[in-house]
Amino acid sequence: MKYILLIDSKDEKGLIYKISKTLFENNINITNEQEFVDNENNKFFYRSEISGELDIKDLKNKLQNTLPLANIKITQKRTKDVIILATKEAHALGDILIKQYSSDFDINIQCVIANRNNLQDLVEKFNIPFYYINADDMDRVTHENKMIEIISKYNPDLIILAKFMRILTPNFVEKYPNKIINIHHSFLPAFIGANPYKQAYKRGVKIIGATAHFVNNDLDDGPIIEQDITRVNHEMNWEEMRNKGRDVEKNVLSRAIKLAIEDRIFVYDNKTIIL
Amino acid sequence: MKYILLIDSKDEKGLIYKISKTLFENNINITNEQEFVDNENNKFFYRSEISGELDIKDLKNKLQNTLPLANIKITQKRTKDVIILATKEAHALGDILIKQYSSDFDINIQCVIANRNNLQDLVEKFNIPFYYINADDMDRVTHENKMIEIISKYNPDLIILAKFMRILTPNFVEKYPNKIINIHHSFLPAFIGANPYKQAYKRGVKIIGATAHFVNNDLDDGPIIEQDITRVNHEMNWEEMRNKGRDVEKNVLSRAIKLAIEDRIFVYDNKTIIL
Amino acid sequence: MKYILLIDSKDEKGLIYKISKTLFENNINITNEQEFVDNENNKFFYRSEISGELDIKDLKNKLQNTLPLANIKITQKRTKDVIILATKEAHALGDILIKQYSSDFDINIQCVIANRNNLQDLVEKFNIPFYYINADDMDRVTHENKMIEIISKYNPDLIILAKFMRILTPNFVEKYPNKIINIHHSFLPAFIGANPYKQAYKRGVKIIGATAHFVNNDLDDGPIIEQDITRVNHEMNWEEMRNKGRDVEKNVLSRAIKLAIEDRIFVYDNKTIIL
Amino acid sequence: MKYILLIDSKDEKGLIYKISKTLFENNINITNEQEFVDNENNKFFYRSEISGELDIKDLKNKLQNTLPLANIKITQKRTKDVIILATKEAHALGDILIKQYSSDFDINIQCVIANRNNLQDLVEKFNIPFYYINADDMDRVTHENKMIEIISKYNPDLIILAKFMRILTPNFVEKYPNKIINIHHSFLPAFIGANPYKQAYKRGVKIIGATAHFVNNDLDDGPIIEQDITRVNHEMNWEEMRNKGRDVEKNVLSRAIKLAIEDRIFVYDNKTIIL
Repeated sequence: MKYILLIDSKDEKGLIYKISKTLFENNINITNEQEFVDNENNKFFYRSEISGELDIKDLKNKLQNTLPLANIKITQKRTKDVIILATKEAHALGDILIKQYSSDFDINIQCVIANRNNLQDLVEKFNIPFYYINADDMDRVTHENKMIEIISKYNPDLIILAKFMRILTPNFVEKYPNKIINIHHSFLPAFIGANPYKQAYKRGVKIIGATAHFVNNDLDDGPIIEQDITRVNHEMNWEEMRNKGRDVEKNVLSRAIKLAIEDRIFVYDNKTIIL
Repeated sequence: MKYILLIDSKDEKGLIYKISKTLFENNINITNEQEFVDNENNKFFYRSEISGELDIKDLKNKLQNTLPLANIKITQKRTKDVIILATKEAHALGDILIKQYSSDFDINIQCVIANRNNLQDLVEKFNIPFYYINADDMDRVTHENKMIEIISKYNPDLIILAKFMRILTPNFVEKYPNKIINIHHSFLPAFIGANPYKQAYKRGVKIIGATAHFVNNDLDDGPIIEQDITRVNHEMNWEEMRNKGRDVEKNVLSRAIKLAIEDRIFVYDNKTIIL
Repeated sequence: MKYILLIDSKDEKGLIYKISKTLFENNINITNEQEFVDNENNKFFYRSEISGELDIKDLKNKLQNTLPLANIKITQKRTKDVIILATKEAHALGDILIKQYSSDFDINIQCVIANRNNLQDLVEKFNIPFYYINADDMDRVTHENKMIEIISKYNPDLIILAKFMRILTPNFVEKYPNKIINIHHSFLPAFIGANPYKQAYKRGVKIIGATAHFVNNDLDDGPIIEQDITRVNHEMNWEEMRNKGRDVEKNVLSRAIKLAIEDRIFVYDNKTIIL
Repeated sequence: MKYILLIDSKDEKGLIYKISKTLFENNINITNEQEFVDNENNKFFYRSEISGELDIKDLKNKLQNTLPLANIKITQKRTKDVIILATKEAHALGDILIKQYSSDFDINIQCVIANRNNLQDLVEKFNIPFYYINADDMDRVTHENKMIEIISKYNPDLIILAKFMRILTPNFVEKYPNKIINIHHSFLPAFIGANPYKQAYKRGVKIIGATAHFVNNDLDDGPIIEQDITRVNHEMNWEEMRNKGRDVEKNVLSRAIKLAIEDRIFVYDNKTIIL
């Protein structure tokens, strides 16, 4: 059995000594271990993969006694449950479907919820429940509450916005802190908001990009998990930029999902620490 | 109606003048136009997208009269028919399936032929014929002839090897000159042959890559269409390199397919000129 | 003798025909030729390298008669004169000095003007005049006028801001339209203004970049010539980002300079078309 | 005072515990710490930056008592002495000169040794001794011995081959194990040996690259430290590839030098582990 141990804490001398002592004395194997000290903010972050005969609650108590002020989380390695929110574009959703299908991702897609119905056929090919909630004549909160109702039946580890083209309100966001990953189709903080490819075309940039981030209450301002770019030039209009950008979007989202399901992301000060 | 005009020729003074004169006098619109002169080899390559009331045969005759020694090809812009050969990995095939499904590619996948049967379920989700030809107890030519028999029923514009893990003999290759695109999982010419990720891991490289190329009679030595790379490090074993490489493979293959179906690739001297 | 022919015009049918006819009838060789039609704005851009026995004025007249509304420019290929403005960082300036020294750039650095004096020693090693104009107790226009006075003695083809950390006013900028290239240390339009590395650090981005652009009256909003990026992570503070970014800055600036001295850049609608 | 602690060892349970215990009990601060376990080869690698009132010899003894089989190295952080070997190209050498000049590198270039004399003027601008040893009429070992004689006067931490276009024999290489860094102008293992840009041009690749590696007895087969690439296309002849490649070469070499002078590189099994 394999477990993930995550610790974050105010930094102080001897943290690694105390953690490794506890693990050593309890006969725990460490397969790999990463740590990071944010010297500027005096913060300590730690992740290890551990194995051995261990009782999660007992080990957590022992570690907490040694590190009384730290946040400590021990979880068994397992397939993560995810829910995908989408609108009408198939590329990001399709990539995740194929990656689950081929076991490139260790995830279980519990359902897909969309505010358009054109992706229903694709999702159902993979025998995944599809919920179509037309948002056109609804206010935001009513629409969100319908989604929340569905999500609450599943209790996912992660909610993935795979080109979900709706702004979420605090009503929704605050229910799932650091559990919602969005892909924004620009290298943030450039081109916040609507139509970033049109903005990029108009500005005449030579690179476009995509940003995967956790969603918080400020539009496109959540902690960035991963970014990447691709080159464009004067020959491309905004539709061609969008088409070229799609591969970047899905790749970036996919890398962020992988980091999340492997429990590698800490969030601090609106940034991510990735171990 | 839109058409693609492709010309290659020995270079000589006035080629563009002669081409543009013929087009102008026949009232043809040029939407965009690219040319390349290989000064070292004294070769001229030309591609344009043209429109207007035109008779392909008649225009071709007029151009040929002006440029008696050139190769001239005029085709109507249309959806391209493709056949995919695969083995057992889903990522490259899946990406093409999704891109056809979402109209990101203007292709019609006529069928998929594989020497394993585990992808059958995926392909048939998309209502595409799947032919399973187990090659285990067959010599190469017998196996290839069974594939050729199927292919001959469809007459595709392009044959895509989407991680088809069999070496093709001249018996097959010579039937489809510059029509077979392969994705090789290394930045050629590094790591030719079997298990490039294992080779890359053993060599300790810091970047891995993928190469899309036309298939000719020499293993992994055909004209390169597109390449890309991703960074790796000492923490990754060869399976992790392979997993990270898969996104590069499918992206590179996908870009090469796009160039091919848009008739942008000339082959000369075992290289590609991309206009 | 080699010449560069640059044409931009309202697009209309037969432009290439008319240009190539004139060149053909005047026995001009075309070594290479690029064109671009901006269909959205109905604009035509053309660049070719030509040779033969030609009289610039005569050829220009003939072309202008055929294309009465076009902007036509014919120049002999030659070493370009440049002036560099700097402040205190050596990396971008040093790269240009080495590239001139080793003939990687076909430029003649006429002088360097700086508002700090710490680069004087470096510049003078290369026997290039260095002008130190302390701007501390001067208003912007007075400072600019002192620079303009120096520049007017040299009449450069290009003014390069190699990390010149002063904002230029219209008083200066409007004297040298599309002749001033700046390197901004972010992938614009992200992180406009002061301290982009600190802004990038604070925002927690995973990529930083640099942008070379022509300078116009709006801060960091001129036509973008070239951009590139490099990856950063949570381990880097802003000084480490700045240090890593320096190589990107100098590479991007260097590529933009190369495009400019080869007369490859058209500016239209606050964008660059690069042929 | 800051120190670097480097440990490599056969992996066993409790290594981190033992190390951190020793450091904790001796009141040593750890500023940052990285480790890597090569599970396949059962090897452990560790690097930390430490500070405090410490006696190197005493601390090393204590650690060695706890980890009897480990290789342990403690060094004070300090400016590194380097010698550069060059031939005739200025770009890689020039970049290092500028980086020393501007304190972007914490190095002291003790001297430059070259088998051509055209770089003498450049090197002496920076008041660095330049040794010209014409190798034309010498056998390899005689030439190398003349270089060894000079090097032995300086005792550098690192020898940098900044486009030194001579093959070194074991006579030279074995004197400086894991101390010689070379920049090879291809993404190894592609294009080993002479004229990689010509090879790349002939093969028609779409990316070219550069590789920084430690030099061992097998040509271009030493442990790779860093690699990067840049895109090329059919329009470029081999000289243009070489010119574009130069920026990649110098960037890659520069990043490798930075890793080396910061004592971040372990060599094991002909690979590098970079902490």
